[in-house]
Amino acid sequence: MTVDIATMTTALEDVVGSGQVFTGEAISDDLTHDEVLGMPGVRPAAVVRPADTDQVAAVVAWASANGVPVTARGAGTGMSGACIPHPDGILISFDRMRSIVEIDLDNHVAVVQPGVTLLELDEALRPHGLIYPVQPGENSASLGGNVATNAGGMRAVRYGVTRNQVLGLTAVLGTGEVIRTGGKFVKATSGYDLTQLIIGSEGTLAVATEVILRLHPRMAHGATVLVPFPDLAHVATSIPRIVGSGLNPTILEYIDFITMGAITAAAGLDLGVPEAIKEAAMAYLVVVLENHVDARVEEDTATLAELCSELGGLDVYVLPPAAGASLIDAREKAFWTAKAMNANEIVDVVVPRAEIPAFLDRCQAIAAEQGSLVVGCGHAGDGNVHLSVFQPDPEKCHATMHGILSTGVALGGAVSGEHGIGRAKKAHLAAIEDPTKLDLMRRIKTAFDPAGILNPGAIFD
Amino acid sequence: MTVDIATMTTALEDVVGSGQVFTGEAISDDLTHDEVLGMPGVRPAAVVRPADTDQVAAVVAWASANGVPVTARGAGTGMSGACIPHPDGILISFDRMRSIVEIDLDNHVAVVQPGVTLLELDEALRPHGLIYPVQPGENSASLGGNVATNAGGMRAVRYGVTRNQVLGLTAVLGTGEVIRTGGKFVKATSGYDLTQLIIGSEGTLAVATEVILRLHPRMAHGATVLVPFPDLAHVATSIPRIVGSGLNPTILEYIDFITMGAITAAAGLDLGVPEAIKEAAMAYLVVVLENHVDARVEEDTATLAELCSELGGLDVYVLPPAAGASLIDAREKAFWTAKAMNANEIVDVVVPRAEIPAFLDRCQAIAAEQGSLVVGCGHAGDGNVHLSVFQPDPEKCHATMHGILSTGVALGGAVSGEHGIGRAKKAHLAAIEDPTKLDLMRRIKTAFDPAGILNPGAIFD
Repeated sequence: MTVDIATMTTALEDVVGSGQVFTGEAISDDLTHDEVLGMPGVRPAAVVRPADTDQVAAVVAWASANGVPVTARGAGTGMSGACIPHPDGILISFDRMRSIVEIDLDNHVAVVQPGVTLLELDEALRPHGLIYPVQPGENSASLGGNVATNAGGMRAVRYGVTRNQVLGLTAVLGTGEVIRTGGKFVKATSGYDLTQLIIGSEGTLAVATEVILRLHPRMAHGATVLVPFPDLAHVATSIPRIVGSGLNPTILEYIDFITMGAITAAAGLDLGVPEAIKEAAMAYLVVVLENHVDARVEEDTATLAELCSELGGLDVYVLPPAAGASLIDAREKAFWTAKAMNANEIVDVVVPRAEIPAFLDRCQAIAAEQGSLVVGCGHAGDGNVHLSVFQPDPEKCHATMHGILSTGVALGGAVSGEHGIGRAKKAHLAAIEDPTKLDLMRRIKTAFDPAGILNPGAIFD
Repeated sequence: MTVDIATMTTALEDVVGSGQVFTGEAISDDLTHDEVLGMPGVRPAAVVRPADTDQVAAVVAWASANGVPVTARGAGTGMSGACIPHPDGILISFDRMRSIVEIDLDNHVAVVQPGVTLLELDEALRPHGLIYPVQPGENSASLGGNVATNAGGMRAVRYGVTRNQVLGLTAVLGTGEVIRTGGKFVKATSGYDLTQLIIGSEGTLAVATEVILRLHPRMAHGATVLVPFPDLAHVATSIPRIVGSGLNPTILEYIDFITMGAITAAAGLDLGVPEAIKEAAMAYLVVVLENHVDARVEEDTATLAELCSELGGLDVYVLPPAAGASLIDAREKAFWTAKAMNANEIVDVVVPRAEIPAFLDRCQAIAAEQGSLVVGCGHAGDGNVHLSVFQPDPEKCHATMHGILSTGVALGGAVSGEHGIGRAKKAHLAAIEDPTKLDLMRRIKTAFDPAGILNPGAIFD
């Protein structure tokens, strides 16, 4: 550490005020980690709670001048260790920057500070008949964190992911300079798209301090349909037919039979599927259809049911609204179910969606070779597969993960669909990704952050 | 020029073969310009016609080693002079790289070479019931050019722009290195999004040699609705109501009465609007509704008609299919109509859509001050305004443009919504844009293109 803690504290208090800097034991344990599995927390040298963009800029400028690492933290719900702080660094907590600055009904845009949670935003939008459609499954997540990881979730098949909703940013570069990118519009070709570059960069290029989000009409009517299939191959061949039909589902998920058993048991949920069907069903498809006109939901549900029967579905269940909502909720909690069952690693590889069966077949072969158990579910419409890996032996676990991630990339996919690389998967990325691209990314990082202080150790070393 | 032409020719012929390098008078005039107004064409030192990615990489590597500028050119339909070559440089023409490599029906993805035109792709997709939804109004445009400019067009209000459809690229960096970004999937968080950064960079960061595109179901049924309004303010206040209704229009355009008169006259089109309505209508709204179910188009049209009457529409015309198609076609040709009428400059500023009336009011004030005539139409749902500026005096024309572009940015917009900066608007960008962002963009360019050979003089100097 190049700066002593007293000097750092004084400098930071000059910026944010004396009650807003924490060091040593005054730093809550909560701030030392996110939700990644198997990585120990780290206590930073200091936590600061800035009140506005100018204070964030001043903190980063000071850190840059003194070579001190800076990690930004939203709600800490990330899955890749991207906001685990540096032991000699500063953690910027956005507890005080959680205002919804504006809900603009004419432009269908919200402007928010990074600490605002998805739940807070959703509650503010509900009275206006609007939604922010990205729901990564944890509504205590912050919008700043969503930007950093390009958060996805189940509704991506209809609405896309965070990068499709963020129209502009106020962001602090690694130099402490503040830029404003984009605006309340969905298109521009006026120089390089800095907004898109910062989204998903996991706090390594810039710290977002204000976010302009696109809003959509909230659909008044919906139905949840559950279709058991004999195997995953049938689910996979059904996807292009369902998407190609124009039904435009809001959710299109697959759940394997083990995961379905676990999440419904954890939620105490009985979906009314007869035993004989349960025994024959190795994979389930969950489809949510929504529309602004009630009758169209019924009509589309009937069309979907007919299509799924043709495609080999063992039966089609239109769930009662409460059961439908509970199933989606249970699916969103799949991670917590896996964690409670002591899963050792979480995979969120994305592959071309038609490759899901081949990918999962190979994952099972890799798991068998290492004596690991691999089960899961996923965003079938997006090719984004969520697997829990059970393998207590660290070496075998690493080998299982390496095999699975390499296989995903070999099938035309990517290491992470929505969780990010963070600290948890950077060794895998370094081993699997093209070195030319990694070198280019490092040069881009230097363009934003010449002193290398922004979240060092995330994505790559 | 640091390399003599004979040396250059020999080096390039070694890469692409002897019949594929052109110099001097053998270079067609067509290759010296795009469709920008008021900029003279430039004859490059050489034109090369590579056959594949490896040849493009070898050309760029040679150019990099010898400090020779390289400009990539698709169909040359750009509006900002971005593919006007450097007099001492190489123009890469993609005449020989125009294969549709793959139409993947399982993943709803097309893989194309950069020389493929929108029309060629559309014809190939039609039998499969799929579309590539970006239609910038000129279907002889190439996909490579669309990537370079982040092309938009009328359907952006429903489908977004090029950057929302491009899932991955094969691209040659300024060093001659080849990278592959993204893939046949809609989401990833695995390092920086190089795909998004290259899109819209107007050939200054990398040369795309293969593009992975997202496809959508082709809607079988549609209707074109024309609504005359007393003024543009009424159109603008109608937009959030129409979008918020959930009708999800495919097209949502405004056309001012002068432009409507000009484009219908140029197309010989009679839309059956009575004289009394024409005299009262200062602005028209054109809405296209599409659905996969026929009855829903009728139902939605009725809902829209009711809404527009409430919102002050003077009448509502559901156009017969042929007239509807002709009006859309005439609107797409608005640029050619303006060009035929000797327009001096074209504006494609984007502003928050609710600011369109304020923006246009200020534009008229600026035009009056300079004695210029400014008329237009635009993508009302997107806030992207297309104006023709008539002002033969170069200084007054520049002042008019500077006033209009600055006003757009001051209202929270950007200099270009979809045409790009190219060579035509770089002086305005330099004058209007934040220098911190321009410096950052230059550092990003250096990360991709350390020798500064890729399309120098586009976007910035």
